[in-house]
Amino acid sequence: MAKARTETVLMSEMAWPEFGQKMKTNPVVFVPCGAMEQHGPHLPLSVDAMLPTDIAREVAEEVGGIVGPTLTMGYRSYTKSGGGPHFPGTINLDGATVISIVRDVIRELVRHGARKLCFIVGHYENQWFVSEGIDQAMREVGDQGVRIMRLEYWDFCTSETLAKVFPDGFPGVALEHAAVMETSLMLHYHPEMVRIDKIPDNPGAEFPPYDMYPAHAHWVPSSGALVSAKAATREKGVLMAQQYRRDIAAAVRKEFGGGKRKAKAGGKSR
Amino acid sequence: MAKARTETVLMSEMAWPEFGQKMKTNPVVFVPCGAMEQHGPHLPLSVDAMLPTDIAREVAEEVGGIVGPTLTMGYRSYTKSGGGPHFPGTINLDGATVISIVRDVIRELVRHGARKLCFIVGHYENQWFVSEGIDQAMREVGDQGVRIMRLEYWDFCTSETLAKVFPDGFPGVALEHAAVMETSLMLHYHPEMVRIDKIPDNPGAEFPPYDMYPAHAHWVPSSGALVSAKAATREKGVLMAQQYRRDIAAAVRKEFGGGKRKAKAGGKSR
Amino acid sequence: MAKARTETVLMSEMAWPEFGQKMKTNPVVFVPCGAMEQHGPHLPLSVDAMLPTDIAREVAEEVGGIVGPTLTMGYRSYTKSGGGPHFPGTINLDGATVISIVRDVIRELVRHGARKLCFIVGHYENQWFVSEGIDQAMREVGDQGVRIMRLEYWDFCTSETLAKVFPDGFPGVALEHAAVMETSLMLHYHPEMVRIDKIPDNPGAEFPPYDMYPAHAHWVPSSGALVSAKAATREKGVLMAQQYRRDIAAAVRKEFGGGKRKAKAGGKSR
Amino acid sequence: MAKARTETVLMSEMAWPEFGQKMKTNPVVFVPCGAMEQHGPHLPLSVDAMLPTDIAREVAEEVGGIVGPTLTMGYRSYTKSGGGPHFPGTINLDGATVISIVRDVIRELVRHGARKLCFIVGHYENQWFVSEGIDQAMREVGDQGVRIMRLEYWDFCTSETLAKVFPDGFPGVALEHAAVMETSLMLHYHPEMVRIDKIPDNPGAEFPPYDMYPAHAHWVPSSGALVSAKAATREKGVLMAQQYRRDIAAAVRKEFGGGKRKAKAGGKSR
Amino acid sequence: MAKARTETVLMSEMAWPEFGQKMKTNPVVFVPCGAMEQHGPHLPLSVDAMLPTDIAREVAEEVGGIVGPTLTMGYRSYTKSGGGPHFPGTINLDGATVISIVRDVIRELVRHGARKLCFIVGHYENQWFVSEGIDQAMREVGDQGVRIMRLEYWDFCTSETLAKVFPDGFPGVALEHAAVMETSLMLHYHPEMVRIDKIPDNPGAEFPPYDMYPAHAHWVPSSGALVSAKAATREKGVLMAQQYRRDIAAAVRKEFGGGKRKAKAGGKSR
Amino acid sequence: MAKARTETVLMSEMAWPEFGQKMKTNPVVFVPCGAMEQHGPHLPLSVDAMLPTDIAREVAEEVGGIVGPTLTMGYRSYTKSGGGPHFPGTINLDGATVISIVRDVIRELVRHGARKLCFIVGHYENQWFVSEGIDQAMREVGDQGVRIMRLEYWDFCTSETLAKVFPDGFPGVALEHAAVMETSLMLHYHPEMVRIDKIPDNPGAEFPPYDMYPAHAHWVPSSGALVSAKAATREKGVLMAQQYRRDIAAAVRKEFGGGKRKAKAGGKSR
Repeated sequence: MAKARTETVLMSEMAWPEFGQKMKTNPVVFVPCGAMEQHGPHLPLSVDAMLPTDIAREVAEEVGGIVGPTLTMGYRSYTKSGGGPHFPGTINLDGATVISIVRDVIRELVRHGARKLCFIVGHYENQWFVSEGIDQAMREVGDQGVRIMRLEYWDFCTSETLAKVFPDGFPGVALEHAAVMETSLMLHYHPEMVRIDKIPDNPGAEFPPYDMYPAHAHWVPSSGALVSAKAATREKGVLMAQQYRRDIAAAVRKEFGGGKRKAKAGGKSR
Repeated sequence: MAKARTETVLMSEMAWPEFGQKMKTNPVVFVPCGAMEQHGPHLPLSVDAMLPTDIAREVAEEVGGIVGPTLTMGYRSYTKSGGGPHFPGTINLDGATVISIVRDVIRELVRHGARKLCFIVGHYENQWFVSEGIDQAMREVGDQGVRIMRLEYWDFCTSETLAKVFPDGFPGVALEHAAVMETSLMLHYHPEMVRIDKIPDNPGAEFPPYDMYPAHAHWVPSSGALVSAKAATREKGVLMAQQYRRDIAAAVRKEFGGGKRKAKAGGKSR
Repeated sequence: MAKARTETVLMSEMAWPEFGQKMKTNPVVFVPCGAMEQHGPHLPLSVDAMLPTDIAREVAEEVGGIVGPTLTMGYRSYTKSGGGPHFPGTINLDGATVISIVRDVIRELVRHGARKLCFIVGHYENQWFVSEGIDQAMREVGDQGVRIMRLEYWDFCTSETLAKVFPDGFPGVALEHAAVMETSLMLHYHPEMVRIDKIPDNPGAEFPPYDMYPAHAHWVPSSGALVSAKAATREKGVLMAQQYRRDIAAAVRKEFGGGKRKAKAGGKSR
Repeated sequence: MAKARTETVLMSEMAWPEFGQKMKTNPVVFVPCGAMEQHGPHLPLSVDAMLPTDIAREVAEEVGGIVGPTLTMGYRSYTKSGGGPHFPGTINLDGATVISIVRDVIRELVRHGARKLCFIVGHYENQWFVSEGIDQAMREVGDQGVRIMRLEYWDFCTSETLAKVFPDGFPGVALEHAAVMETSLMLHYHPEMVRIDKIPDNPGAEFPPYDMYPAHAHWVPSSGALVSAKAATREKGVLMAQQYRRDIAAAVRKEFGGGKRKAKAGGKSR
Repeated sequence: MAKARTETVLMSEMAWPEFGQKMKTNPVVFVPCGAMEQHGPHLPLSVDAMLPTDIAREVAEEVGGIVGPTLTMGYRSYTKSGGGPHFPGTINLDGATVISIVRDVIRELVRHGARKLCFIVGHYENQWFVSEGIDQAMREVGDQGVRIMRLEYWDFCTSETLAKVFPDGFPGVALEHAAVMETSLMLHYHPEMVRIDKIPDNPGAEFPPYDMYPAHAHWVPSSGALVSAKAATREKGVLMAQQYRRDIAAAVRKEFGGGKRKAKAGGKSR
Repeated sequence: MAKARTETVLMSEMAWPEFGQKMKTNPVVFVPCGAMEQHGPHLPLSVDAMLPTDIAREVAEEVGGIVGPTLTMGYRSYTKSGGGPHFPGTINLDGATVISIVRDVIRELVRHGARKLCFIVGHYENQWFVSEGIDQAMREVGDQGVRIMRLEYWDFCTSETLAKVFPDGFPGVALEHAAVMETSLMLHYHPEMVRIDKIPDNPGAEFPPYDMYPAHAHWVPSSGALVSAKAATREKGVLMAQQYRRDIAAAVRKEFGGGKRKAKAGGKSR
């Protein structure tokens, strides 16, 4: 157990000498950007924080990186991508708050020597405010050779994977909230967190090409899932997880160079 | 396992219908306020987030409350209470960022019906910025009957407990960073996270009655622990944890009324 | 000419008594949200401000509304949707600045009696910051019955229209920057602004599923157009403009009710 | 027509290669700072944006400069200089918003190579917030040799011009809102925008030596013009415009050096 | 001495029960708005804070009001009105800082029951940022019947007074920085603070009709006084002080009603 | 009198040439950080601004320094250390406002050449926001060799002094608000400001180990003094003042080096 502890890639579990030692290798530091947001009756509120942390951990193991602090809360939920504000449990941070957190985290990681950062976004609505936070931080840290990658992990899903996950056709990423992809990944990474008996089977939401403020609650299925999650399976979760691990690691290596592949590939370190 | 899941007091593990149902009872919602900060060579960087979350969970079980989102990063580390900026791994959020997070979280919890909140601070430097965030939020939510408690959990330590934890005399709360109290609590709650062989035994730091900017690194013991943690034991951790659970729950009941005591007292739900 | 002047739907051209009189009818007030951003070698920097203003003007004529102030500058250009920061001429406002402008404009329009607002976004990157500005303003104006619609005009393009504009297949909205759609609309609304001899014919850009900071300039075609604009024609512009006018007006009527159709339909008032 | 287009001094009408080419000459970049504000029953709400843009265009032609983005909205209208908040149509931006816009615009223009900027203020209330925005930007851009001029165009009016415009005596610049000077300039630059039959002839407002919040509406003539505009003529507009063009160009040359005088002097390029 | 103490109109000198008692009469609360800014070789840096405090005290005695906290630092010094940034000793607060202070002070005074406030500005450059702070506060305190007056005390100088103070003609308020008016008032209120042997006698500054950033130091007389202060006398100070006391008090009574005239008129209470 | 004036250590009383001359010696610049806050029925609202200014003045005389601008208002009063918000007269600045003031003051003093600054806090609640302001400023001024000391003056009170001031035992610094220490110092520095007949003799407040928002007014003695001030004497004030002068000066010399001891030691210069 002591062994597992000292081999963790999670910064939060490291003692400072371990973190300090690791930083001397100029590792890629991953920052998972999640949320606390409704995810249907079958998934916990923190799905969007859990999944990018899981993916970040695996990629960090793959490339010899570190997983920095997870952003456990995120930008406000939009009606058409996350169900919106009328569901209990969603914590909507202001845009300015998300920007500030991202900027501060970068400033601090750079202060500790990080020059290669990778933000893995697990909450759709985060991406523009994470991006703005990165831009603000880049302006602030100046010319120190810092380079940052930002990605939404689902954008790495290949057409091959999609074909296997959705043998009857992909309803589109826009509706994939608390649906087959997230549920399958949760069945893989955190099966004990999935209320299998509550997996919803509602038809896909249909949204007009505009938004309204205040939001129209009746646009959203009452379950909070934007389309049926019934077809979710653990096997699909494994499939996606492995493909993400492989391809995100490849992109990280392409942009940031080298990166040792650890012998013990693919396993969960925790 | 499904049972444990649906009985969780942690908001992050709830699905939205469970959270919504629970909120109808007007529960006390606890917000643990932590940090990512150096805690000596023997404790992980996230001690200050872990401990108030553990305590909040126990008190929430005791009084029928909910544990809302943990603030996993906090205000910047001061030299004389946390070792300061020169240790690797500390993530210093700006004061304005902490204030914004606290304000947003309160606004959102109040939007979901919370009227009784309790901020449990686990990182000394957080308290004034958490307090300011509460003040800002109170101004914003206006006259909805919201009442908020804020506490630093160690302030509940009684002289009786202190006498048992420090049979040779208490060196003072000012030096209790990564020392006997935190290490003992970690040995109780998260023993697998403690590097026992790394527990430092340095003499207590001596600080002059002022601060310097930039900080003098030589004021702080090189271990990062402000005083020896050698006397830490799991038993002391249990002792403190039980007393905190009892007395914080009592204070919460006094201020917020009623609060059912659950039959299964004292256990860890996770 | 005096006649045209007093019949303008553009707030900027009205004298205060005209605006005040018009506001008594509780009209929909449109706010075009543009940018100053590179749009290839053939289009002016202010395309993203011109087009939503043109569309807003037409829809306002259709439904008896007013076109409020155009946001002539917008949120920073992203590499993968706008070519990014390395092109001369793009003015990137900070996210906080865009949010503030939107919030102030709403506060002021509401102060003048507006209860129905419609933000027509003409610059892709604006949408999330316009949305945040709306949310901030809604919180501030409180319970006065204000309702706001926000739309990106291209989302109203029907599959029928797409089929006509792209007889050889639609390369996807992601690449439609300074390309066939925008160029065709400019050929319709502002033909004198199009440098026809400079219309680029480069192949479509191919982007990886992530972003880099600082941006990789080599990801973007040197023209600044993300795909060829050669197939642009004025007729396609007319086709899209008419469909947008019809369908956006319909959506506005659906959400905001009634809305007299003026006898003189479809013409440009200026 | 293509010719006029490629010879424009307006950045908004340039395509990026034209702007980029021009910036290599280190031109003075002019930023007109306007407003949307009531200007009596006879002038449009955007007078304060139109006039400095017109003047900037002429001076830019004179000295070989560029007219950057016009600020079409400005700082809030004061009762004693602009009629104040009770007139329909005025859009009052917060001071912080104006400061942010100015700072962002400077930062961006400097990023594109501008080292000589000239802010031409056309809305009295803007000047202190434009000035603060300049100061903030100067602090941010640091030591790159940036120099900025800021002027309120009416301050260039000579006593000779005044004597001709006001043969019966000048009532003072304080009352010149929607009055003889602005109306004459509009008759010159935008005659189609002036409701000649609505030109007010009220006596001059008399204000006490203090301000009140909330504003006293009865201090202001009901027309919104602070003094009669009856004596306005196009000829006076031409007179002022020519003098401003000559003297502002001279000041620009004095501070920024050289500046080619174009052969075709004085005409309107658009 | 106890008597003087309990009769003070200065809030800073009151104990809380005295202030609380006084506030029950709904008094006008005056807020002097000063600066720390160069005022020539003969006047202290805090002239702009001292004089409005003196005047506020006298007017408060006259109308039965209270002098709240003096703003001892103010908005940045402009070259053409205060000599600008190159003189040692000027403390330039950012615009946002001044706005925040004013807003906070109003919020707090209103919380203590104040409904009539009067800001007396003693530093020219403060006025627009004080005004913005008032506007922000008015928006925040909402509909509680708060009314606020703002004045620059020199605007109350009558032509009669001017004729006596400047028998050879008034050089204009624009140059009256550290000159005859301020020096005379200081000779009246704080003679021990005036370095009489250092009173400068330079000719008046001549400024062009624009500003430059960075400022041109050579525009300003090396003394820091914008025109000669030689003609300053204590008698002129008395004359102005009495007229200001009389006329500002009259304006305050006109706007805020009643206001008992204390028997002991005109004396200095301290 | 001219002599006293030109020998002042108070920046506010200096003319710019005196300040400029003095700054060439690279003096320590002291910034007293006070408040306007209730201090019982016997002390004026500005005690927390007066005392650190007095102490700063003495230490500045001792080490050849300058006393910069006093912060006359401070961060909001806490219930358990200052009596809290329900007492008339306390002006609570927002945290962000205090941070901004401190940052601006440092930026400006550094611009004038200051490299050694010492913030003397006289209001308990200020310290964390003053600290944050210092951190913000240090980040902004960059690498210019600036060093800043921050101290709460009461932390310099030695056990010897405590034994003399509290012969019957020290009730603890937590209750020392408007009590023996502050009252004694005021009897020394400003005896005319103390309402001796109003000195309260209430028993010490007892606070639970948590805070409530809104604050419980009944926690605080009705006098506003957290414990009896009856034992206050001028002699105790002198004792403390002399010890503070000696020991703070010693700390300043230790950190900032040299510092001439002026012949005329210990006297009040004003």
